Amino acid sequence: MLYSMIMAGGSGTRFWPMSRELFPKQFLSFEGPDSLLAKTVNRILPLVPEDRIAIVVGATHASETRRILQGMNDGLGRECRLVIEPRSLNTLPAIALTSLLIAREDPDAVVAVMASDHLISPQDHFLALVQHAAGIAQNEKVLLTFGIPPHRPETGFGYLELGEELPAFSTGLFTARKVAKFVEKPDLTKARLFLSGGRHHWNSGMFVFSVRTFFEELSLIQPTLFESLSSVREALGQAEERRAIDHFYRHTSPLSIDYGLMEHSSRVWSISGPIDWKDVGSWSALDDISPHDNEGNVVRGNAVMIDTENSIIHADKRVVALIGLKDMIVVDTDDATLICPKDRAQQVREVVSRLRDRNAVEAMEHRTTHRPWGHYTVLDQGPMYKLKSVTVNPGGRLSLQMHLHRSEHWVVIAGTARIILGEEEIFLHTNQSIDVPKATKHRIENPGKVPLIIIEVQNGEYLEEDDIIRFQDDYRRTDETHDTFAPPPVKEDHP
Amino acid sequence: MLYSMIMAGGSGTRFWPMSRELFPKQFLSFEGPDSLLAKTVNRILPLVPEDRIAIVVGATHASETRRILQGMNDGLGRECRLVIEPRSLNTLPAIALTSLLIAREDPDAVVAVMASDHLISPQDHFLALVQHAAGIAQNEKVLLTFGIPPHRPETGFGYLELGEELPAFSTGLFTARKVAKFVEKPDLTKARLFLSGGRHHWNSGMFVFSVRTFFEELSLIQPTLFESLSSVREALGQAEERRAIDHFYRHTSPLSIDYGLMEHSSRVWSISGPIDWKDVGSWSALDDISPHDNEGNVVRGNAVMIDTENSIIHADKRVVALIGLKDMIVVDTDDATLICPKDRAQQVREVVSRLRDRNAVEAMEHRTTHRPWGHYTVLDQGPMYKLKSVTVNPGGRLSLQMHLHRSEHWVVIAGTARIILGEEEIFLHTNQSIDVPKATKHRIENPGKVPLIIIEVQNGEYLEEDDIIRFQDDYRRTDETHDTFAPPPVKEDHP
Repeated sequence: MLYSMIMAGGSGTRFWPMSRELFPKQFLSFEGPDSLLAKTVNRILPLVPEDRIAIVVGATHASETRRILQGMNDGLGRECRLVIEPRSLNTLPAIALTSLLIAREDPDAVVAVMASDHLISPQDHFLALVQHAAGIAQNEKVLLTFGIPPHRPETGFGYLELGEELPAFSTGLFTARKVAKFVEKPDLTKARLFLSGGRHHWNSGMFVFSVRTFFEELSLIQPTLFESLSSVREALGQAEERRAIDHFYRHTSPLSIDYGLMEHSSRVWSISGPIDWKDVGSWSALDDISPHDNEGNVVRGNAVMIDTENSIIHADKRVVALIGLKDMIVVDTDDATLICPKDRAQQVREVVSRLRDRNAVEAMEHRTTHRPWGHYTVLDQGPMYKLKSVTVNPGGRLSLQMHLHRSEHWVVIAGTARIILGEEEIFLHTNQSIDVPKATKHRIENPGKVPLIIIEVQNGEYLEEDDIIRFQDDYRRTDETHDTFAPPPVKEDHP
Repeated sequence: MLYSMIMAGGSGTRFWPMSRELFPKQFLSFEGPDSLLAKTVNRILPLVPEDRIAIVVGATHASETRRILQGMNDGLGRECRLVIEPRSLNTLPAIALTSLLIAREDPDAVVAVMASDHLISPQDHFLALVQHAAGIAQNEKVLLTFGIPPHRPETGFGYLELGEELPAFSTGLFTARKVAKFVEKPDLTKARLFLSGGRHHWNSGMFVFSVRTFFEELSLIQPTLFESLSSVREALGQAEERRAIDHFYRHTSPLSIDYGLMEHSSRVWSISGPIDWKDVGSWSALDDISPHDNEGNVVRGNAVMIDTENSIIHADKRVVALIGLKDMIVVDTDDATLICPKDRAQQVREVVSRLRDRNAVEAMEHRTTHRPWGHYTVLDQGPMYKLKSVTVNPGGRLSLQMHLHRSEHWVVIAGTARIILGEEEIFLHTNQSIDVPKATKHRIENPGKVPLIIIEVQNGEYLEEDDIIRFQDDYRRTDETHDTFAPPPVKEDHP
């Protein structure tokens, strides 16, 4: 059976300040309302049902990933499987572990490995390409890569040096070839030669293989890594599973599938066809993706522009006024603004690393934080208070909780709230308010059909999120266990 | 007696987004905590007592000007007189009207006319210069200008072409000369010639004259304007005074004192001396005023800078990240951001004019609005709610008021409030809250010794500031009369 593995381990640095450590690129939308991750899942869904889609994510991104999947197409993404990595070790360990989990369900599975930050069209060509590749992978026992014919001398991608063509495996649309060599990111001179020579394709980072072939090659090329997976294999489905995976991640070194496996294998073929492929790599990539105005600008949000050309402007809601800018990137969010020339977009990482050194919250998270029940935004904070707008989705319910260092005051702005306060149950309607004293158990629920919006004023000497004692939680946040490759959590009945 | 007239009619466009129509440049601080206006008043105070200082302001800036004056040196500026202009007609009509008001108090008065947006040091030289000029103005019956020897080929100022030196009126420090000609802003070639020739000074826009000499020259050079002042002269101190002034402003054309009077008068002398004079004309002027870091940047606020040189960065509190900027201006405020090259700082006016065309509130006012009793900041607003932080100064009291379209919920964050709600009086302490229903009379007072901070959540279908019915107000905002040149309002006793 065909499975798909979506690599969603982004670290949130390249699209700062729109991305943050806790809200990386794959959660952002660049084309239409859907996030890159949702687009990636949607793209493969006609070919691979959701319970055969495995999404590889870091532990800090798991709950936001679930939220996005549950929000897709009326919950159609809800059955996708998550493989939660305890730390990021580049692609090969993650692909090996996930292939192991898949092989346990179906030893004959064929897997299509996708990145979560590509834009690909048209979808029907893409699906036909995956299907064609899956057939070859199964029958010919080869590792397939997707090569993209270059249309500019790009220095930001790796390249495939193409070998002999395989007409027996090519169709009217798709061409299959052996891969002679994997080539690292070239300098501009080389990239120009690759472009004119016609013997190099971009390495898209997508792969198709049967798990059988994958492990055959892995055992030959990376015997140590293969060996260290064996204790995970034995623990699968047992109580020790999580511990075995943690052990594997602690004792394995970072390695990419390109350098760790593909470039050493003689069983690598490449396939290419008429698909439009875009890597959303950094802010400057928006020039590739987004429509331009008459002056060559990509503009989102509220901008006043005078003599401004070929620039990328991204504003949340504040006014951004630009005079005489050329080839610049300006990104304005609630709590941070980035300004840099397009050709220095890669240095945004340095900004994030400086902010991390300062322990600045702006490296880590947005003012708005998503939760399984909805989201909240910090509107303001001062020495003894914090102000939040809290939105609870219909049917959503916060945990039954208590704070030791703060009291809270809630004003309902829209919708209806069912409030538990101590032993009381209270219904609060728009324009009503309630005080929640320190050390009092409380809970907010939205029993209605429209979002519940509450303004919360917190008062106290300590106002961090970790001043919370949870007594009961619909979203399993009272314990810390993770089930690898488990189906998503079932919502408990209300007590 | 010596009077001072301070021209504070700025329109708030050149320093947008730090300045706004309702918060122009003279209210901003660039050097230390004091506003330019407060600095201007402080500078002249040792020579001219506050009740002989007249500040010319537009009607929309009067209350903020009073607030600044009352906040200076424990209220030392409180007795300054305000001349409130119904509309701005450039400098000559304002100077003529104010001279008339001064002449009524003292027909022999000498007036020193100052701008409210200059930085001048050292103060003792400046005061000596004014005093010396005042003596000459009185004895010689001439109009004196302050000329500044140029030290760069500035194209943004007007120049004085100097005539014969007057050794009898010069001292060791100061040189007096006749003025041969007023010269308009030159192009760069001319400005370079002026700089090397040594026969031109910058026209600082400061003047000293006796009101007698001023009106003699005005009657000769601008007989129509002089004539139209006569009905104001007759109405002074009468019930019709305000109406006469309004009539004068409606029927007079804009005219500057330079072009309308000085350049046609043969009785103009100039005086210059060792003072350091800076015109705070636009964002690029900060290079003149502020200290620079090792890379030549002027930085205020929270900035992360990579390879950024010779730029002016002004950030309120959000993080601003800059990569590879040269000679740029970046100004980041609560609700708007400006980015432009230094040499285009003048075009900030165009931004403001575009925002005005859109009726954008960002042209007009800041999120924080000052009131006689304190200030408030709009923290957030949505379709049915508005969120404010309200700070009431010790002893301050809002008007007794009522809203027809909104209810309000208050949470005290700091301090103690005395609340009138309907017929009740309630004391509210930190961490307590109260609901104020629609159409209920209410009032907030800070009876304590520390600022009272309240978070206000407004709820309703119409949330503008004009939904207010005031029943009693300590700050005379229940009626609309203005007394020209009246002493400042006396605080009423609490009822």
